[in-house]
Amino acid sequence: MSSTAGLILTCKAAVAWEAGKPLIIQDVEVAPPQAMEVRIKIKYTSLCRTDLYFWESKGQTPLFPRIFGHEAAGVVESVGEGVSDLEVGDHVLPVFTGECGDCRHCRSDVSNMCDLLRINPVRGVMLADGQSRFSINGEPVNHFLGTSTFSEYTVVHSGCVAKINPLAPLDKVCILSCGVSTGLGATLNVAKPERGSSVAVFGLGAVGLAAAEGARIAGASRIIGVDRSSKRFEEAKKFGVTDFVNTSEHDRPIQEVIAEMTNGGVDRSVECTGNIDNMISAFECVHDGWGVAVLVGVPSKDAVFMTKPINVLNERTLKGTFFGNYKPRTDLPSVVDMYMNKQLELEKFITHRIPFSEINKAFEYMVKGEGLRCIISMED
Amino acid sequence: MSSTAGLILTCKAAVAWEAGKPLIIQDVEVAPPQAMEVRIKIKYTSLCRTDLYFWESKGQTPLFPRIFGHEAAGVVESVGEGVSDLEVGDHVLPVFTGECGDCRHCRSDVSNMCDLLRINPVRGVMLADGQSRFSINGEPVNHFLGTSTFSEYTVVHSGCVAKINPLAPLDKVCILSCGVSTGLGATLNVAKPERGSSVAVFGLGAVGLAAAEGARIAGASRIIGVDRSSKRFEEAKKFGVTDFVNTSEHDRPIQEVIAEMTNGGVDRSVECTGNIDNMISAFECVHDGWGVAVLVGVPSKDAVFMTKPINVLNERTLKGTFFGNYKPRTDLPSVVDMYMNKQLELEKFITHRIPFSEINKAFEYMVKGEGLRCIISMED
Repeated sequence: MSSTAGLILTCKAAVAWEAGKPLIIQDVEVAPPQAMEVRIKIKYTSLCRTDLYFWESKGQTPLFPRIFGHEAAGVVESVGEGVSDLEVGDHVLPVFTGECGDCRHCRSDVSNMCDLLRINPVRGVMLADGQSRFSINGEPVNHFLGTSTFSEYTVVHSGCVAKINPLAPLDKVCILSCGVSTGLGATLNVAKPERGSSVAVFGLGAVGLAAAEGARIAGASRIIGVDRSSKRFEEAKKFGVTDFVNTSEHDRPIQEVIAEMTNGGVDRSVECTGNIDNMISAFECVHDGWGVAVLVGVPSKDAVFMTKPINVLNERTLKGTFFGNYKPRTDLPSVVDMYMNKQLELEKFITHRIPFSEINKAFEYMVKGEGLRCIISMED
Repeated sequence: MSSTAGLILTCKAAVAWEAGKPLIIQDVEVAPPQAMEVRIKIKYTSLCRTDLYFWESKGQTPLFPRIFGHEAAGVVESVGEGVSDLEVGDHVLPVFTGECGDCRHCRSDVSNMCDLLRINPVRGVMLADGQSRFSINGEPVNHFLGTSTFSEYTVVHSGCVAKINPLAPLDKVCILSCGVSTGLGATLNVAKPERGSSVAVFGLGAVGLAAAEGARIAGASRIIGVDRSSKRFEEAKKFGVTDFVNTSEHDRPIQEVIAEMTNGGVDRSVECTGNIDNMISAFECVHDGWGVAVLVGVPSKDAVFMTKPINVLNERTLKGTFFGNYKPRTDLPSVVDMYMNKQLELEKFITHRIPFSEINKAFEYMVKGEGLRCIISMED
């Protein structure tokens, strides 16, 4: 039992008051966790494109004030009633999607799309009581993805909390709670390339490079990076990418370019941009007979995936994945262990480090497309 | 060595001289097999929709005179040079697609789309020398799918011949050389439903009912048959179909009807009609998280498969299959054994039996949509 359990805590949080405007670091009150919830002291957080997307709030119903943040690592400060698998002091990753352990998805060997705790970006309150645990002068502040990690303390449903190896450095493994696991799992859990095979990765941002890292770990011998800009190509070599295709340099379908490079198509592809043309190319660039294409990137609402049925009938497979098919509580601890065993290299994803007081810089880096992950330290 | 080896044989064949016109049974000369070929005495053959399609020759380049037929069983009469795995007297199924054993597809664990011997409906000659083995008064007659089983003797590439259990009744297992294996394998090899799961089958012709038979064998507890006509529903119960959806009775997407019946979608679907709307419905009717849709039916050339990417991203899988992913030489013997072990029930597919002299009746039955398979006996 921590000395602060059951109390309302006052701490610093970075509050977004308006779409696209700099966050303001200010005092917020954080209520104690209710039944099946935990309160976490966030140690490190990082910025992911989904934060940026909802902060910019273009074409969505704005939900402000709001505390963003969903890639993070911290330590359990206190637990609510009924929480039996987490205790004060546990090192944890809060996750934007959950695992109730009881629904049809959680009981399935393959799905991680929990009925109860599936991602919900439009909800700004906790599930239990439809209330926020954050307030400023008595006025509620919205949660984001059930995590809101841009705060020194946050309250999260216990089904969205992965307990990890306490020896793992939180300033590294914090990036496993979203983007890196998403790309890594897309390759390792869904595409499953064989040793010596070829893999095309569409999009060389953090998710795409994590997909490439998965291909490297799986022993793929040829990893083709596809992006519309060459500026990531040099960096991508560190992630095992062996070949590059700049989509802006070709005036014919990229699937044709890749088929030509690979004697008929790659064994696997992983699409991480959400661009609909790339999604179609990613499917059509896999080899007939055995090729598997995995879609990760989320497209605009009006996009339609179109292909000639013969591309399917010729024994290609199209699969979608969400969070790399990892079940957050069950599987993330082992991803942390992959890093601890030096199988997975996280350092190369971390291009910037800033103190919490400078959190708006992380947004600037991402808007400019500079770097991959910016670690924000809550204690500096 | 048979006494006829090396000789040109004269025998009866059913020759198609013109698109859509009755076949004419007449004498043809059948040359001996060349290197890597075998000559087979056909015992039983049956009519499959693909024969009908190319016989009708609507919108294709006509290739006549031609000897159709590709579902059959027979006995090896003689073998050409270099054939080491087949000998005179072997009981065999000739197959419209082959297995060279050496290409990337044959070496793959999953593909059966052999580079050398893949189906080619527009070729009317043998691969080895670009010549026909059939002639009438010295004039060549075209082969069909490399099998041409509407003849008492035919010549087939040895890579397209499956050697089977000599105890298997050829008048039953002949239907395994195309349609039934196609549907059965789509379910057992590709969709792979778990025991107790739900499966939707689109199209209740022979291929669809074979897909249902696969679901029954796999232990699916709910098999939903989807067809635009109710007339097959009673018969389909014999194949384990438990529920029926008549597409013509609904004015909303069938995927919605099926999702409602199944609390969100079926675990697996198998599309056997080739109708593009059905293909889309078959994909969208599988449950998110774990659903797998398998496309079997071949659509028109202009058809485009369209779906919202979110349907894929929500962890659905779309796969295509060709000949049920069976490798003809490697796998068909075990399908015959499934019948011999009474696991697979073939009798219920056989709705008509006729002597070779009445082969045109088989076309009439199929044109009318009457029955499933008509066995044509070459010896009556």
